[in-house]
Amino acid sequence: MCGIAGTWNVEDSYNVVHDLLLALQHRGQQSAGIVVNGFKSIKGEGLVENVITDEKFIPGSCAIGHVRYSTYGSIDEIQPLIAHTFKGRVALAHNGNIVDADERRKFVMENGGIFSTTLDSEIFIHYFSIAPYRSPKDSLQWTLSRIKAAYSIVMLHDTFLAAARDTFGIRPLFYGKFNNGYVVASEDSALSSIGCTDIIEIEPGSIVFFTDGNSPEIIYFGQRNDRFCSFEFVYFARPDSNFYGVNVHEIRKKLGMKLFEEHKVIGDVIVPVLDSGFSGALGYSTASKIPIDYGLIRNHYIGRSFIMPKNRQDIVRRKLSPLSSVVQDKEVILIDDSIVRGTTMKVIVEMVREAGAKKVYVGIHSPAVVGPCNYGIDTSRRSELIASQRDIENLKAYVGADKLFYLSVENYKKVFEESGVKGICMGCFDLNYPA
Amino acid sequence: MCGIAGTWNVEDSYNVVHDLLLALQHRGQQSAGIVVNGFKSIKGEGLVENVITDEKFIPGSCAIGHVRYSTYGSIDEIQPLIAHTFKGRVALAHNGNIVDADERRKFVMENGGIFSTTLDSEIFIHYFSIAPYRSPKDSLQWTLSRIKAAYSIVMLHDTFLAAARDTFGIRPLFYGKFNNGYVVASEDSALSSIGCTDIIEIEPGSIVFFTDGNSPEIIYFGQRNDRFCSFEFVYFARPDSNFYGVNVHEIRKKLGMKLFEEHKVIGDVIVPVLDSGFSGALGYSTASKIPIDYGLIRNHYIGRSFIMPKNRQDIVRRKLSPLSSVVQDKEVILIDDSIVRGTTMKVIVEMVREAGAKKVYVGIHSPAVVGPCNYGIDTSRRSELIASQRDIENLKAYVGADKLFYLSVENYKKVFEESGVKGICMGCFDLNYPA
Amino acid sequence: MCGIAGTWNVEDSYNVVHDLLLALQHRGQQSAGIVVNGFKSIKGEGLVENVITDEKFIPGSCAIGHVRYSTYGSIDEIQPLIAHTFKGRVALAHNGNIVDADERRKFVMENGGIFSTTLDSEIFIHYFSIAPYRSPKDSLQWTLSRIKAAYSIVMLHDTFLAAARDTFGIRPLFYGKFNNGYVVASEDSALSSIGCTDIIEIEPGSIVFFTDGNSPEIIYFGQRNDRFCSFEFVYFARPDSNFYGVNVHEIRKKLGMKLFEEHKVIGDVIVPVLDSGFSGALGYSTASKIPIDYGLIRNHYIGRSFIMPKNRQDIVRRKLSPLSSVVQDKEVILIDDSIVRGTTMKVIVEMVREAGAKKVYVGIHSPAVVGPCNYGIDTSRRSELIASQRDIENLKAYVGADKLFYLSVENYKKVFEESGVKGICMGCFDLNYPA
Amino acid sequence: MCGIAGTWNVEDSYNVVHDLLLALQHRGQQSAGIVVNGFKSIKGEGLVENVITDEKFIPGSCAIGHVRYSTYGSIDEIQPLIAHTFKGRVALAHNGNIVDADERRKFVMENGGIFSTTLDSEIFIHYFSIAPYRSPKDSLQWTLSRIKAAYSIVMLHDTFLAAARDTFGIRPLFYGKFNNGYVVASEDSALSSIGCTDIIEIEPGSIVFFTDGNSPEIIYFGQRNDRFCSFEFVYFARPDSNFYGVNVHEIRKKLGMKLFEEHKVIGDVIVPVLDSGFSGALGYSTASKIPIDYGLIRNHYIGRSFIMPKNRQDIVRRKLSPLSSVVQDKEVILIDDSIVRGTTMKVIVEMVREAGAKKVYVGIHSPAVVGPCNYGIDTSRRSELIASQRDIENLKAYVGADKLFYLSVENYKKVFEESGVKGICMGCFDLNYPA
Repeated sequence: MCGIAGTWNVEDSYNVVHDLLLALQHRGQQSAGIVVNGFKSIKGEGLVENVITDEKFIPGSCAIGHVRYSTYGSIDEIQPLIAHTFKGRVALAHNGNIVDADERRKFVMENGGIFSTTLDSEIFIHYFSIAPYRSPKDSLQWTLSRIKAAYSIVMLHDTFLAAARDTFGIRPLFYGKFNNGYVVASEDSALSSIGCTDIIEIEPGSIVFFTDGNSPEIIYFGQRNDRFCSFEFVYFARPDSNFYGVNVHEIRKKLGMKLFEEHKVIGDVIVPVLDSGFSGALGYSTASKIPIDYGLIRNHYIGRSFIMPKNRQDIVRRKLSPLSSVVQDKEVILIDDSIVRGTTMKVIVEMVREAGAKKVYVGIHSPAVVGPCNYGIDTSRRSELIASQRDIENLKAYVGADKLFYLSVENYKKVFEESGVKGICMGCFDLNYPA
Repeated sequence: MCGIAGTWNVEDSYNVVHDLLLALQHRGQQSAGIVVNGFKSIKGEGLVENVITDEKFIPGSCAIGHVRYSTYGSIDEIQPLIAHTFKGRVALAHNGNIVDADERRKFVMENGGIFSTTLDSEIFIHYFSIAPYRSPKDSLQWTLSRIKAAYSIVMLHDTFLAAARDTFGIRPLFYGKFNNGYVVASEDSALSSIGCTDIIEIEPGSIVFFTDGNSPEIIYFGQRNDRFCSFEFVYFARPDSNFYGVNVHEIRKKLGMKLFEEHKVIGDVIVPVLDSGFSGALGYSTASKIPIDYGLIRNHYIGRSFIMPKNRQDIVRRKLSPLSSVVQDKEVILIDDSIVRGTTMKVIVEMVREAGAKKVYVGIHSPAVVGPCNYGIDTSRRSELIASQRDIENLKAYVGADKLFYLSVENYKKVFEESGVKGICMGCFDLNYPA
Repeated sequence: MCGIAGTWNVEDSYNVVHDLLLALQHRGQQSAGIVVNGFKSIKGEGLVENVITDEKFIPGSCAIGHVRYSTYGSIDEIQPLIAHTFKGRVALAHNGNIVDADERRKFVMENGGIFSTTLDSEIFIHYFSIAPYRSPKDSLQWTLSRIKAAYSIVMLHDTFLAAARDTFGIRPLFYGKFNNGYVVASEDSALSSIGCTDIIEIEPGSIVFFTDGNSPEIIYFGQRNDRFCSFEFVYFARPDSNFYGVNVHEIRKKLGMKLFEEHKVIGDVIVPVLDSGFSGALGYSTASKIPIDYGLIRNHYIGRSFIMPKNRQDIVRRKLSPLSSVVQDKEVILIDDSIVRGTTMKVIVEMVREAGAKKVYVGIHSPAVVGPCNYGIDTSRRSELIASQRDIENLKAYVGADKLFYLSVENYKKVFEESGVKGICMGCFDLNYPA
Repeated sequence: MCGIAGTWNVEDSYNVVHDLLLALQHRGQQSAGIVVNGFKSIKGEGLVENVITDEKFIPGSCAIGHVRYSTYGSIDEIQPLIAHTFKGRVALAHNGNIVDADERRKFVMENGGIFSTTLDSEIFIHYFSIAPYRSPKDSLQWTLSRIKAAYSIVMLHDTFLAAARDTFGIRPLFYGKFNNGYVVASEDSALSSIGCTDIIEIEPGSIVFFTDGNSPEIIYFGQRNDRFCSFEFVYFARPDSNFYGVNVHEIRKKLGMKLFEEHKVIGDVIVPVLDSGFSGALGYSTASKIPIDYGLIRNHYIGRSFIMPKNRQDIVRRKLSPLSSVVQDKEVILIDDSIVRGTTMKVIVEMVREAGAKKVYVGIHSPAVVGPCNYGIDTSRRSELIASQRDIENLKAYVGADKLFYLSVENYKKVFEESGVKGICMGCFDLNYPA
């Protein structure tokens, strides 16, 4: 996953994009980069606070930035990308994955083009350069009408800032007013946090151009056909973010409520599996009238401990403390948003049982993942996930729970529909992919 | 506040004390130090992970360490202290404050003694050196029988590790088995987190001596008279710690329940003020049957933002997001463990109101603080607190709440009594000090 | 200025290129970069030791690296450059400046090519990509036959390492054997320092290809016409380096000897202006029989002092101590290799006079600079230099010397001819440029 | 070895002491420390620039500082020492070694005193505290009249700065005016470098007290009996320093001249062994009329190279380049100030021979070391030195020189006498120790 941000006509844009990237840090912790007008850039591996530092301040009134979940090791691979073209200089930051990147890349190279990275994102710039127009705006419109999902991008040109989403709107993107200028970011909560007003969700299939002395200009390059990634709601986004005007925390609560309605699993106490399960557990509690309690305490600093446990299980054991006073002699319902590898959940179930629980039930407020994601979620991580979830009975035995229950695809879909979120992508749950 | 730790006959004690200090990091973030046998030391300002690093590893089978809430700027002032005496070398780490430190210090200096720090903790070592005994153990016993509360200490000598608490037992201290040796720490959860077993709470008025080839030897130096700091339960300690066998999270829940019983303030939703109010809010919800919900979301990285708000209020505004969907048109009951300056609560009330709350009530699950603490809680911070709380009506007006209610001293006391925690110190609440 | 290095079939090439760049550090201190096979790269501003660190080690048996005198602020602008082309992946490091870079760049962009940097060095890669050959070797040969001076380059391809110099041989480049492989570097002393043997100076107008299982293959792409930069001898290179088999320290001594022969300025003592004047002063002393003495002592650490002098003159005063015992009541002849701004020499003359010198004469063992350099020496620095040197009488008055004398262009040239170094470039001295 | 510095009534003393310590960095590179009034301190291992940084600035108008050659690993052992006594707070920095430290330390401890370090320097403070006077000045005078050589110290008290040297004056110490206040440092060149005026060498057996509103007050505590360490001249001090009004560089030249006069060893070229041999080689050249040349070039950055040579000899080989053009077919006379282990010289001789020298002669412009130093020169290093120098014939064979010659004790002594430096210590050369 990635987070992107941009500014136009904003004093000390370096600082503003820094703050937006901080607020988007949960979308990617492995690299960060910023480009300020004059096309000066700072890039590096690691967290925003370590890369985009105070001493490296670059003056300027427009900028774009990027945070990323995974990098391939070379500093050249870190976004935003910069290029000098016959149509002006451009910088670009991209969230998502181009589905047919390999063919497009080959096409460019066969015609003598050179790629300075292995990133599919660089294709946008080549197409922009070879587009059969002199106008940069027309060239960008032509480019996006030819490149398939999934992408949300910000592009800084000598004469404008552009922000665009693919026609499916798979990844989010917002803009709003800030003092006399404009700011763009992947989530509206990031914009709110810096005091931005008049926040607007960019329409799928449109480009918003910010230029000097004008209101933002919206250009459509394709037919809108909403397939927003539902995992943004379930897992990635901050609880105080909103998509389609619907709050993330509220959706998670509703998923938790629906989970109870579907399975009616009853117990003595509901224990959220840390932060990710909090909202869903609250919903389950509301619907079931079963009390919620904090039966798992996280040891915050354990990640940096020196006495290294031999295996992953022991790491989990050092990271979490179950509270006996909460679970002793109880039927405990653990609620989480998803199961990644299953190894963590296996240890949690074990620990809760050792702390005295009579029964341990595990409820997941999304469906089991059955297919890969080609739209911007790290595939390697996903493949492990799929493997471990082919069969719910097996998984239940593996994690050692007395019950294991997921929300069905139908009910999952229904929650979004009932909330007014139409057109979601559930490809990883139902293999029904948009492109 | 401070956290202390020690090891005896434990392989790579450097790593073990490091991990214990990590688990005690919440008790002090401003300096950290470690002394390993051979009396090599590492000290520095800041977090454990920045001071006690991997590259500085010191081999050895015993060690003591310290984390501290406040330092006076000089590296010489960072604990543990080291001294070379006629009775052998000693290193010492101290949690608490000696009540009559000034007189005792003057006494030592008038007799030609020199202090290398301004810390009251150095008095222990001088008394140890001038005690009228040749035996180091007898000297320590004599020392502690003369020095008044408050202290929990670990002391490393060439021939033993000692761990002791004053007769009131104001500050906590625990020890347990680890492989073939022993480990000591301020909280039992720190010991548990590294896999320590047979954990024992050190008795007030006793010293536990760990020596080679023997079981721990317990020496009593004064009459036990329990006055354990109740603020450890309310605020300082981790929720998975236990004192007198009673779990911290459970006490907080009971304080929340008692708060409802006492005031019966009714509303539509209970919103915990972040982590510190979670347990109490849960108790209030359980007792009142009013649903709890997460109406305040923290922006984790905002502390490092570059666009600096002009005043403290704006900082709070950037740090917290209220969720309209949770509080809109509701009577909201905010629950927190204590009010420090009041400025933060004032902004929170304002924000919750702006997010649409009909009424905002503030419940605090401890009594109002009316006196200073002389036993180890940072006084400067405390004095601001007192000033702002002289009158609850004034404070209510200041924070702008529709209602503001504290737990009474009587009910507060009752919760501890009912839980089996006898002999607490409530000096800051009722001016009834132990010494 | 820049330094470049490369390896082929050398174990842990990262370490070897690191060490070569360390030994070339005097050629550029502002940025450093390395690319190891698999095309992983590390780049950053500052010294080699700060950028190419131990922890960032990248395994691999071939690599290229670069150190640079000036960067334009963005990490993207740091060499080596990396590109993915239809003919394979390439990385390139370049020392020098392409004379007709602007036209060539425009040509590429008009045909849809995008530049990811502002560096003229990127032109090599575009030409390589658009060359009308499928073979990478043929493509490189075609490229170099079309791109004008000045350049020494190393280029890493999936299937070879190439090292080449322009037909004038303006910048140096050497290669030699190292264990079972080959190493390349800007100066032979760098190769010697790591224990490399069989060191060969690459011929102007040739490419040396290093491939698996073969001896190096030499391809000529143009007619050799030697115009080696004589400033490499005078100023840039290390005294233990050799060009055309002639030692740098020896040439500097001969320039000093010739300076005496030309001007016959007599005095009591010769004082070298620090390191840069040492060799020349020795020559002047040898020829004149006037004793040399160290009358100027450098305060090594003053660059990092906190009490900042108000102006440049005071900085020089803190950086240097004149020894009264050496200069008192003497006619002092200061010898240096060149005068950059004149401000430093002005203060030195002043200080030596204050320390008691009767007369202060300044001898420079190269001619006055009258034109810019377009072949890789930083122009901005050069332009200040030219401005200050238009008239020797003026300059003498400015620096306050009793005499100021330069080596004439004719004698300068003669020293190189007599030493067997034919075909040097003296464009900055006589406006006679090669291209 | 150590360097010490102090200020009184000097604005931003932190910066001034920092700059003095920078200028004394050659006297100790392993730890650095500073104490500013209010007795705030900064200490750490490593170079001044890494320890006493800009961000840690402490305001104040008086300060003392220390740089040290060796530390015993703990940050508590780094000077200056700080103590709180009945007579006020004191901070102390010490250069030298107390000869009877063990007995004095035992005496203090038996009387109940505690040492917070293992440093002999702490004895000064204990004696100050137990001195039978109320007046701090009287107490310091009493202390110094009882503690034997060797020491130069600076001591900061609440009411004064004191600077003192033992009666033998073994270690140097100077003071001078700086703006409206005073500064103290181990070498006069350090004082000069910051622009200090009216520099005075502190008399052996005296204390200079700097107090508010008065001229410095000089108190004598013992009979002056000059035995200044002659190794300060030969090796430790900067060439632009002066002791007894005699310049260090000049003494070294004279030692070189005397070396020729004594041995009359003739050759074709004199090659100084890097910086330490420069001045002596110049003297040898002046006396013998044999030309000097730079036949050994240092590779400055090799200390940080990654390809680690297997043994010490290979390290030297990578660190130094002999110039064939200088030594080929010549009888080469290498001049150095001393031989430490002999291993380095062995490799140098080997390299010079390989570079083509016909004969290699080694001249040392000080006598062979035959005894330890108890006055502040690191003993461990010295003991290796002694072992390797018991017999000059053996040593000659070991280093592989055709000739090896030292300056005799008599001639060495004579150079100092003729220069007007009376009363030097030559204990390590002639076993005639002062105390």
